[in-house]
Amino acid sequence: MKEIKGGVCAPLGFKANGVHCGIRKNKTKEDLALLTADDMCSAAAVYTTNKVKGAPITVTKANLQNGKARVLICNSGNANTCNADGVQKAERMCELAAQFTGADKSDVIVASTGVIGQILPIEPIEAGMPALAAGLSREGGAAAARAIMTTDTVPKEFAREALIGGKSVRVGAMAKGSGMIHPNMATLLCFVTTDAALSPAMLDKALHAAVADTLNMVSIDGDTSTNDMLTVMASGKSGIKEITEEGEEYAAFLALLTAVLTDVSRAIAKDGEGATRLLECKVSGAPDVPTAKKIAKSVVCSSLLKAAISAADANWGRVLCAIGYADAQFDIDKIDVDLCSAAGRVAVCRGGSGVPFDEEEATAVLSPDEVTVEVNCNSGPARATAWGCDLTCDYVKINADYRT
Amino acid sequence: MKEIKGGVCAPLGFKANGVHCGIRKNKTKEDLALLTADDMCSAAAVYTTNKVKGAPITVTKANLQNGKARVLICNSGNANTCNADGVQKAERMCELAAQFTGADKSDVIVASTGVIGQILPIEPIEAGMPALAAGLSREGGAAAARAIMTTDTVPKEFAREALIGGKSVRVGAMAKGSGMIHPNMATLLCFVTTDAALSPAMLDKALHAAVADTLNMVSIDGDTSTNDMLTVMASGKSGIKEITEEGEEYAAFLALLTAVLTDVSRAIAKDGEGATRLLECKVSGAPDVPTAKKIAKSVVCSSLLKAAISAADANWGRVLCAIGYADAQFDIDKIDVDLCSAAGRVAVCRGGSGVPFDEEEATAVLSPDEVTVEVNCNSGPARATAWGCDLTCDYVKINADYRT
Repeated sequence: MKEIKGGVCAPLGFKANGVHCGIRKNKTKEDLALLTADDMCSAAAVYTTNKVKGAPITVTKANLQNGKARVLICNSGNANTCNADGVQKAERMCELAAQFTGADKSDVIVASTGVIGQILPIEPIEAGMPALAAGLSREGGAAAARAIMTTDTVPKEFAREALIGGKSVRVGAMAKGSGMIHPNMATLLCFVTTDAALSPAMLDKALHAAVADTLNMVSIDGDTSTNDMLTVMASGKSGIKEITEEGEEYAAFLALLTAVLTDVSRAIAKDGEGATRLLECKVSGAPDVPTAKKIAKSVVCSSLLKAAISAADANWGRVLCAIGYADAQFDIDKIDVDLCSAAGRVAVCRGGSGVPFDEEEATAVLSPDEVTVEVNCNSGPARATAWGCDLTCDYVKINADYRT
Repeated sequence: MKEIKGGVCAPLGFKANGVHCGIRKNKTKEDLALLTADDMCSAAAVYTTNKVKGAPITVTKANLQNGKARVLICNSGNANTCNADGVQKAERMCELAAQFTGADKSDVIVASTGVIGQILPIEPIEAGMPALAAGLSREGGAAAARAIMTTDTVPKEFAREALIGGKSVRVGAMAKGSGMIHPNMATLLCFVTTDAALSPAMLDKALHAAVADTLNMVSIDGDTSTNDMLTVMASGKSGIKEITEEGEEYAAFLALLTAVLTDVSRAIAKDGEGATRLLECKVSGAPDVPTAKKIAKSVVCSSLLKAAISAADANWGRVLCAIGYADAQFDIDKIDVDLCSAAGRVAVCRGGSGVPFDEEEATAVLSPDEVTVEVNCNSGPARATAWGCDLTCDYVKINADYRT
C-alpha cells in the first residue's frame, strides 16, 4: 500500500484547481477550490451531527441522494452557516460550478468553511470561476488543497496505491483542519477521490467503516463543527470490475481507504490549532471496541493532559483521571500506562497506581513532535487509537480574535 | 437571605483553622485545614463520578455511612490518589484529626487536593497537628479556606443567614477550584456548615437538590476530577426544630443552601485557572429542565467560545455551534441569543440566524469581568443557568508545568 504523490488528482479521472477569488482579504492565499471528474462518479458522504448545519450541507445532502456526483466546489473564509440566505447562496455555487464544467447542478458537491454567521459574498466566487475552471488540471490537487485551508499551517493531501483484483487502484484525499474539531459520525472537511469502481451503496459502506476508525477518532478541541463533511468520489478509471458486494476486493479497498484516512487523521491532529505535538492514544486489552474508543478519545480530549503535553511534562495522573471519567465499564485497577515516542518508552502506571520513573527520561520521551500514550486495560482483546494534539497559548491566541 | 461574614464558622457550633505544615514547598501558603463541630452533626456528601477516586473519598464515604460527622481535615498540595498506600494514609489523617480533637476517627471527613500519583508524605501532617488544633477558633474560617486552595487566586468563603421557623439560621461554605472542574453528580472540594437542625436523610436530600442547580452546572475545563467532594455538616445550634420532612422549613433551608452554593459556583467559575471573566449562560424557553441544562453547559464548555470571550470577541456563531451539538432535542431554528453584562445587552441571533449588531457595542458588553450569554429556545417554560470562564494562555501556562 504505497504512498504516492498527487493528492485528489492521483487517482485516474480527476482534475482540480484552486484560486484566490477574494472571500479572504489575504491575497496570497487561495480561497476557492474546484475538483471535477471526467465522467460521473459513485459518491458517498458523511456529515456533521451538529443540529446547526451549514447551508452547503443541506444542499450537498440533497444532491448526493442518488449516490452520484461529478464536481466539487468549496470556499474557505466563510462557512455560509446561520445566514437566512445560506441555501440560496449554496445553490448558486452549484449553478456556477455546473455552468463552468458542463455538469448538471444536481451533481455538484458544495462546501464552505470559515466564520459562522456572516453573509457569504457571492460576487467574488462569480468573478473567480472563469480562471478557476480554466486552470483545472491533473496537477491542480495542491492548489485545491491550499484553497480549503483555514487556520491550517500546512496543506493536507495524501494518496496511496494498492493492487486490487490485479490492477493498480489509487485513493487520494485533501482535508482541512484545524479547530472546532470533535467529530461524531462525520468530521471537518475532507474530500476523497479514487479510481476504484464501486456501487454507491458499497462506497457508502466503505466510507462509514473507514471513518469510524479514523476521522471520528480525532479531537482537537471538543467542538463539533457545523460544517463537517467528508465526501468520496469513485471514478472507476482504474479499470477494476465494479465492487458491488463484500469480498476480497471490498476488503482491499477498505484497507486502502482506511490507510489514506489514517494519514489524514494524523495530519489533522498534528496541525490542530496552536499545536506543537501530535498526541496519540493507543488503547489495548479493552473488553470491547466501543470501550477502547471511549477511553482513547477521553485521553486525547483532556485539556489538562494536553496542556501538560505542550510542556513535555509526564503528568500521567491526568491520563488516569481522563480514563476514569470515560463513559464506559472497565476495571480501573488493571490499567497500565506507558508514554512512548521515537525517543523511547517510559512505564508510569501499573494496575492503576503510579510506578517510579526517571523524570528526565520521561521528558525526553515526550519531546518529539509525535507522542503516544499507550493504555493497556488488561481486560480483553479490543483495541482503538485516537488522535489529538497538545494545548498551547497559540490555540487561545488563534481563537481569541478569529474573526478579524 | 442576608450575606454575612465568617465562612464555615458563621453558623453556630463550628471552629476552624489552617496552617502551613510542609506538604507544599511554598511556606507562605497554608496547606492543612481543620474544621470541628462542638458536638456531633448530621452530615451528607456528594462525590466525584470519576472511576479513579482519591483514597480520601473511599475513607470519607465509609465514615459518613451513618449520616454523622464532627471533624473535617483537608490538605492541599497532594491529592493522595493513584497511590498504593492511599487509603492507609487517609485513615492515618482521620486518626490524627480524632486524636487532636477528641472525636472518634470514624466521625472524621478527610479530603486531599493537589497532584495525582505522588505519595502523600504523612510526616508534615503529623508535625503540623498540634499547632493546627491549638489554633482552632470561631475566627479560623479564613485560614482554613486558604489552606485548601490549589491554583485558586482567591480564597472562597461565603455565608448567608435567613429566618427559618422564626429563628436565624446560617449556612457557611469554603471551597477550592480551580482546574479539573467539570462536575457530574459531585464536584471539586466544597465544605458547608450550618446551624440548622436536619435529619441526615433530609440534609442529604437538600444537598443533592441544591448541588444539581449549582455546582453541577459549573465547568472550567471539562475534566472531572478524581477527588471532588462536597460535604455539609449541620450542628443544630440555631435552636430550630429538627427538619425531618419536606415542608416550609425544608424549603426555606433549601433556598438558603442553594443561595450559598450559587455564590460558591460563581466564585469557582470566575476564578477558573487562568480566567479573566466569569462566563454565565442563562437558558430560558426550553422544552424541559434537562434540555435547558444541557444547552447551558454546552455553551460554557466550548473551548472556542471561551477563547473568544477572553478577547471580548462577539463570535456568536460559536454559541450557536455549541447549542447545536448539545445532546438534546429542540428546534434550533427558534433560538434567540443575546450577549449581556453590566455594560448592556446586544441581540446577535434571532430564529437561528444572525442579526446585524454594532461590533464596538458588543465588545463593550463583553468587556466586564462577568458576562452572560442569554439563550431563549422559544419552545417551552424551562430554565437553567451554567457557569464557566474564559480560556486564556494562563490556563495553558498553569497546567503546562503544574507538578513543578
